[in-house]
Amino acid sequence: MKLVKTVAELQKIVKETKKAGKSIGLVPTMGALHEGHASLIKAAHAENDFTIVSDFVNPTQFGPTEDLDAYPRTLEHDCKLAEEMGADVLFAPSPKEMYPSRDMTWVEVTGDITKVLCGRTRPIHFRGVATVVSKLFNLAQPDKAYFGQKDAQQAQVLKRMVKDLFFPLEIRVMPIVREADGLAKSSRNVYLNKAERSAAVILSKALAKAKAAFEAGERDSAKLIALVTEMIQTEPLSNIDYVEMYQLPDLTPAEKTVTADHLLAVAVKFGTTRLIDNIILQK
Amino acid sequence: MKLVKTVAELQKIVKETKKAGKSIGLVPTMGALHEGHASLIKAAHAENDFTIVSDFVNPTQFGPTEDLDAYPRTLEHDCKLAEEMGADVLFAPSPKEMYPSRDMTWVEVTGDITKVLCGRTRPIHFRGVATVVSKLFNLAQPDKAYFGQKDAQQAQVLKRMVKDLFFPLEIRVMPIVREADGLAKSSRNVYLNKAERSAAVILSKALAKAKAAFEAGERDSAKLIALVTEMIQTEPLSNIDYVEMYQLPDLTPAEKTVTADHLLAVAVKFGTTRLIDNIILQK
Repeated sequence: MKLVKTVAELQKIVKETKKAGKSIGLVPTMGALHEGHASLIKAAHAENDFTIVSDFVNPTQFGPTEDLDAYPRTLEHDCKLAEEMGADVLFAPSPKEMYPSRDMTWVEVTGDITKVLCGRTRPIHFRGVATVVSKLFNLAQPDKAYFGQKDAQQAQVLKRMVKDLFFPLEIRVMPIVREADGLAKSSRNVYLNKAERSAAVILSKALAKAKAAFEAGERDSAKLIALVTEMIQTEPLSNIDYVEMYQLPDLTPAEKTVTADHLLAVAVKFGTTRLIDNIILQK
Repeated sequence: MKLVKTVAELQKIVKETKKAGKSIGLVPTMGALHEGHASLIKAAHAENDFTIVSDFVNPTQFGPTEDLDAYPRTLEHDCKLAEEMGADVLFAPSPKEMYPSRDMTWVEVTGDITKVLCGRTRPIHFRGVATVVSKLFNLAQPDKAYFGQKDAQQAQVLKRMVKDLFFPLEIRVMPIVREADGLAKSSRNVYLNKAERSAAVILSKALAKAKAAFEAGERDSAKLIALVTEMIQTEPLSNIDYVEMYQLPDLTPAEKTVTADHLLAVAVKFGTTRLIDNIILQK
């Protein structure tokens, strides 16, 4: 596996790879790779001739009070894991490489899809994501790009961006990878102290309970939301940002009585650490 | 030459063309093709294996009081001219094909480059241009894309967009094509009545005078601007929107004493028709 730090070098490699007629899989990450990322890289490697993993903590998707500086950076570990999972290139550019101009060129998906859920408290987040992912798409020119279902809203936003701007690629969304006790794998889990780590398991438990209720026939969206909210609130260390349901794919308002596919998503703080998790309720 | 009206059909043709290892030239137009466009198509045909001309009056780059409905549509003529110049495909989609979602995904180049000149009176114009051209780039996947120097600011904005978002292609900017008396070819020239048409020649005359002064050694930007302004004002039917100079490539403020490459650009109304023209002052 090759560690690539400049745009020019990546462009050269991609040009040669395309010329050789190889298919390309891209796994965009912010580094601090864990088993969730590993599953994406493994899938990319299985489904494509050439796998590029990007490893870039993207400043434009962090708000001014968010954890940009604290975000874990583990490049050496990331290289090892990406190589083990079959990556051909790990692309780890500097912010200056990715943002060459003083003024920005933004890519922005508008509408409810970026305003609800995390978009409400993180108003610039998805503009930063759409912008950096557009750059990565144009650099890596992938046939398929891999994202985790853990960031459910991000996956929907990027699918919409690909549809609207006609990017010639397929977005593959892979299932959430969880710890043994159910906590969704996240680079931010390292922020949790011991008590918060134990408490955080309530998210997956509450969502699993809603899924079980749904599968047993509960179709009242308000009741499903209440069930999750009340269960999370039994955990004293939890501080709910949202527990919400939206229709897929465009995150339009939930039906009162669920008949179509819905996303049930939560964002909850434990101390200063904000965690997200979700399930899809499929008719 | 094939007339293509759907995104799906264009995607199929592009996929086959890329697979065959052919290079692709793209000429994005709003139709109403004239000799200026013809020169772009001719260049694309000469420099690439396969030439795609798009013919789409893009609604998102027109302001609410602008000439979207009046804009000339001449599809039959466009097909004939594009074919004569060597185009392989004329892509003439409906607005619904190009904008499939209710909400927009925008591409926007920010900073002075889109705020000066036409950006001041047409605040949403370049966002619409950047968005539709991004879509066309992703659809046609060109090696080279062709634009006219007549729309000088548009060319600079798109070069910046390509640089910032890493589109894997080259922007080729071709010289202004003029009528025998000097008027720059434009699809909007058909709006001019006979008196306005005669009056409009003052633009190219004034710019040519500034160029001659520059070549004779005049380096004072204020004097060069005044020279153009005063000459245009001798024409009673003219109504100046702007006469301005900016440094290339990013349209930063002009130097007081010119040492680098500058754009000297004008926008002037004749009746209700707004015309633009420009020259580059090259050191």
